[in-house]
Amino acid sequence: MTAVIIGADIGGTSSRVGVANLTGRFLAVVTGGPANPNAVGIDSAGAEIRRVTDAALAAAGQGLGGTPTVAGVVIGLAGITGVADPEGFARAALDPILAGRPPLEVVTDLAVAYASGSPEPDGCVLIAGTGAMAGIIRSGVLDERRDGWGWLLGDDGSGFWLGREAVRATLADLEAGRELGPLGDAILDLVRTQVEPGPGGEYGASELIRSGYARPPRELSEYATLVAELADVDPVAARIADRAAEVLAATLGRLDPGPALPIVLAGSVLQPGPAGRPTPVGSRLRALLSERYENPLHEAGPGVVGAAWLAVPAAARSDRDLHRRLLASARDRSG
Amino acid sequence: MTAVIIGADIGGTSSRVGVANLTGRFLAVVTGGPANPNAVGIDSAGAEIRRVTDAALAAAGQGLGGTPTVAGVVIGLAGITGVADPEGFARAALDPILAGRPPLEVVTDLAVAYASGSPEPDGCVLIAGTGAMAGIIRSGVLDERRDGWGWLLGDDGSGFWLGREAVRATLADLEAGRELGPLGDAILDLVRTQVEPGPGGEYGASELIRSGYARPPRELSEYATLVAELADVDPVAARIADRAAEVLAATLGRLDPGPALPIVLAGSVLQPGPAGRPTPVGSRLRALLSERYENPLHEAGPGVVGAAWLAVPAAARSDRDLHRRLLASARDRSG
Repeated sequence: MTAVIIGADIGGTSSRVGVANLTGRFLAVVTGGPANPNAVGIDSAGAEIRRVTDAALAAAGQGLGGTPTVAGVVIGLAGITGVADPEGFARAALDPILAGRPPLEVVTDLAVAYASGSPEPDGCVLIAGTGAMAGIIRSGVLDERRDGWGWLLGDDGSGFWLGREAVRATLADLEAGRELGPLGDAILDLVRTQVEPGPGGEYGASELIRSGYARPPRELSEYATLVAELADVDPVAARIADRAAEVLAATLGRLDPGPALPIVLAGSVLQPGPAGRPTPVGSRLRALLSERYENPLHEAGPGVVGAAWLAVPAAARSDRDLHRRLLASARDRSG
Repeated sequence: MTAVIIGADIGGTSSRVGVANLTGRFLAVVTGGPANPNAVGIDSAGAEIRRVTDAALAAAGQGLGGTPTVAGVVIGLAGITGVADPEGFARAALDPILAGRPPLEVVTDLAVAYASGSPEPDGCVLIAGTGAMAGIIRSGVLDERRDGWGWLLGDDGSGFWLGREAVRATLADLEAGRELGPLGDAILDLVRTQVEPGPGGEYGASELIRSGYARPPRELSEYATLVAELADVDPVAARIADRAAEVLAATLGRLDPGPALPIVLAGSVLQPGPAGRPTPVGSRLRALLSERYENPLHEAGPGVVGAAWLAVPAAARSDRDLHRRLLASARDRSG
């Protein structure tokens, strides 16, 4: 019977479980709902992980004409330090469907992001999306982390950070009576949809401040996309993107990435969207890192690839081509 | 009958109304509850302002042996732009007790803070306490403002800002495995009273982050006092105080204070407490400003002095000694 590996990329808003064979081809990738125990609770999370994994195994089995043997399972989960016994939780969730008790590991999303971009066991990863953080990975496991402190305390260079800086820059222009550029105009256009105008029907600093406090703070990250869209044409947006690249490079720098360790860049602030256009913060960061380090820079791939790669049995891990084939196969599926 | 002026310093947590004669002596200063309409609503605010003013006038009248004539009333209120018709609101609140409809004005707390520190009609004021902002005052009225955007968007150098920087510096030490200094130790001691320890009974970065999100964000300002207390002995606290002074000087700098305009410094981050010891941020800021500007630097006085000074009839305003006497009289009362 064909041996397969299972890689699960479990999130607070959606989850994906991929089943791949040991030549590096995904036989099934199934998307499910939120399944992070910190977000939805241990019971719901376990049930959803089981459901999606079962569906992925069934889909893979159909192609193979029989239930495959599972050679390894890796589950990537943000905030696993918040779960008392991650392995016990995962085993309890998957035991009913995994006969033969294959090796099973729960790893942090940083380790998965890293492994999706590089097959090397040791390296660095820098993520900037909803949050922002850097990590050093040793033997596939997160060894040290920098930032990732959340919107209130850190996440420097994240989407929230970009949005807040965009609002601050606009407030500074408004209070100084400077004419707004495209970024400030676009921000005030959004504010018009969110709060009532001032006494004279106007939208200015007071209304922008009011809108900031009228919504949950995290929603400031809404403005991050405006910074990305306008960095080529608006000097204020360009300056914010410059600064984001600097603070992200500083976060990585606090890790002291050893020579030649691969650096993987991940997250929506750094990685091209569906259109494939590099993000302004991503381009700037790559330029900064290339100046400072000789380390190879990689783009993160889909989370299921990272988790699946970490699930590959040790004996097969020396085949770096397997990693390349997993990536290509996952891209074929999503393309 | 003796003519008096009324100065009211209305806050969201407490209010003070002072009644002074035109030689600069306070006849009564009465403290009341919160009376800012933005905090407690128009009706409660109006009732409390009337109650405290009535009590202050009665106390002053007792000393004088008769109800005094009111020559002017000034009410200082934070966030008056949020009140649709501040003068109408104040008049409605005070009409029942103010026979003869004396001149009445509602001004922002920035104008009151400025006038408490300088009798000159034009100048600058820099406040750092719960919030942080700078203003240019012209003819006693706030003309331009910088920052004061609140904890989420600005208030750089405020108590909240200091507290957040203290937490960030501690997190950076913890994640790098550096030994904590007195500031970090004191912060973790407070965290122990706020959240449960980690799985091994330990208090570290995770617990500090957890405590930050477990409380309303503003409560990070609790740590500001630790920075002030430890800036002389802890290099981390000293660095945060340095940086606070720099960002506050930058906020003031965005106003471009013209030559010779007095600069008034106000707020708990900048002003000595009851023990009279200068605050570390205040000392550093004074040093920075003295390097950059030749403008005279003043300490703000009690809010009732600023409000009372703004209530002085124009004809008496040329007597700068009157301002000095109001300050001395208010200090006698609180000493």
